[in-house]
Amino acid sequence: MKTLIVYAHPEPKSLNGSLKDLAVSTLESVGHEVRVSDLYAMNWKAVVDAADYGPDASSPLKVPLDSGRAFDAGTLTPDVLAEQRKLLWADTVIFQFPLWWYTMPAILKGWVDRVFTYRFAYGVGEHSDTKYGERFGEGTLAGRKALLSVTVGGPESHYSARGINGPIEDLLFPIHHGILYYPGIEALPPFVLYSVDRMTVEDYADVAKAWEQRLLTLESTEPIPFRPQNFGDYEIPSLHLKEGLEPTGRAGFGLHLRR
Amino acid sequence: MKTLIVYAHPEPKSLNGSLKDLAVSTLESVGHEVRVSDLYAMNWKAVVDAADYGPDASSPLKVPLDSGRAFDAGTLTPDVLAEQRKLLWADTVIFQFPLWWYTMPAILKGWVDRVFTYRFAYGVGEHSDTKYGERFGEGTLAGRKALLSVTVGGPESHYSARGINGPIEDLLFPIHHGILYYPGIEALPPFVLYSVDRMTVEDYADVAKAWEQRLLTLESTEPIPFRPQNFGDYEIPSLHLKEGLEPTGRAGFGLHLRR
Repeated sequence: MKTLIVYAHPEPKSLNGSLKDLAVSTLESVGHEVRVSDLYAMNWKAVVDAADYGPDASSPLKVPLDSGRAFDAGTLTPDVLAEQRKLLWADTVIFQFPLWWYTMPAILKGWVDRVFTYRFAYGVGEHSDTKYGERFGEGTLAGRKALLSVTVGGPESHYSARGINGPIEDLLFPIHHGILYYPGIEALPPFVLYSVDRMTVEDYADVAKAWEQRLLTLESTEPIPFRPQNFGDYEIPSLHLKEGLEPTGRAGFGLHLRR
Repeated sequence: MKTLIVYAHPEPKSLNGSLKDLAVSTLESVGHEVRVSDLYAMNWKAVVDAADYGPDASSPLKVPLDSGRAFDAGTLTPDVLAEQRKLLWADTVIFQFPLWWYTMPAILKGWVDRVFTYRFAYGVGEHSDTKYGERFGEGTLAGRKALLSVTVGGPESHYSARGINGPIEDLLFPIHHGILYYPGIEALPPFVLYSVDRMTVEDYADVAKAWEQRLLTLESTEPIPFRPQNFGDYEIPSLHLKEGLEPTGRAGFGLHLRR
């Protein structure tokens, strides 16, 4: 297994830092190759702007077109090119981050915004009245798997089916489906730790054991069964799910699960 | 009306820039006060780190506790303090941004991550076995309203109830409910423009008319009817929605709507 860990926490001595370190040592101990993008340590530029496209930036700036032109010309900035190469190298990607305001920290969103350029992660394949790209199950990163490892301050009940924050699987859907599955990456069920603000040293021993267990079984873990876009489940060009495909009563994001 | 516009697009000559400018002129033309936080023009620092809390940062860094201590001591950085003051000044907040990877651009997420500190936006009110804070309808920013004005590259059908991206109201729920309603801000129904990558100059005339219409009727627009946390709809301390409160068949994020 070739694993890229994209890690987004400002404090190396945090729980997130420990989980990242444990992932590296656990995977390497059984012979896997691991690379880490430590976004804070890299001083990752979080913000898309014209400097990302250098001489390929048009005026006025057009983010999709300009990023696609720079991608095709090989003139994206070295930091972005390096991350794209790491994604192409990897067969597995782990994202390690705290849930801040119900989604990823800005530095990690900025990694997505800048690395997932047009022609690399979107705008791939034919776009016409009969086909809307190779995406959701197809695309540049098809054949890869990803796992979100997320720490959450609040208790699990607040993120359950009836919990006030909404179900964690729905909160993570825009990442699992919208960011990962879109360019072809299969999302594995996430590793989520709750109530981390109250975690003790004793708790951490159990957490570490559970995390190691997840890491050592990644290759046999079934991904979340999202429906691929181009294999008959959706109307073209509306991309509505065809009537009758979903179990009775299922709605919202859950429609896009195969079973 | 005192309106703060938080605007996040790198190109002043973009559709987002035009909508921001039109909001300023339209609101001012009828006597409202308007302030703009143009995050790109301000070179907004998007990333939470120890520098945010200066001498109040502990080692190892604890983002919630340190941000709360710096908030209480009045020692947050001047850029964050200025945004908190603008929010306290405003009765209405408009967020103008493009939907990038199904949520806000990193620079705007970084505005939330840095400005919505502990003790200002969360960690407000009693937290015990019988109460879990003043939030979701209560909090520091109660009494204010906010509107998301969002541009979307893809067509509306892809964001409808059966659309492949998921319903737009579910994609925006973590912002409307998780970011805005949490510290007390009522979220108004969003102003969403689709297929903007194909928009023509002729289309823009209609768009501008619709946007002016929304702006001039903001004060009479009913907010999204989210359920407040502390007025009987939720079990304590699980914060599960009480059984039987939702219309038959409603699930997921939709549970948290009053009707």
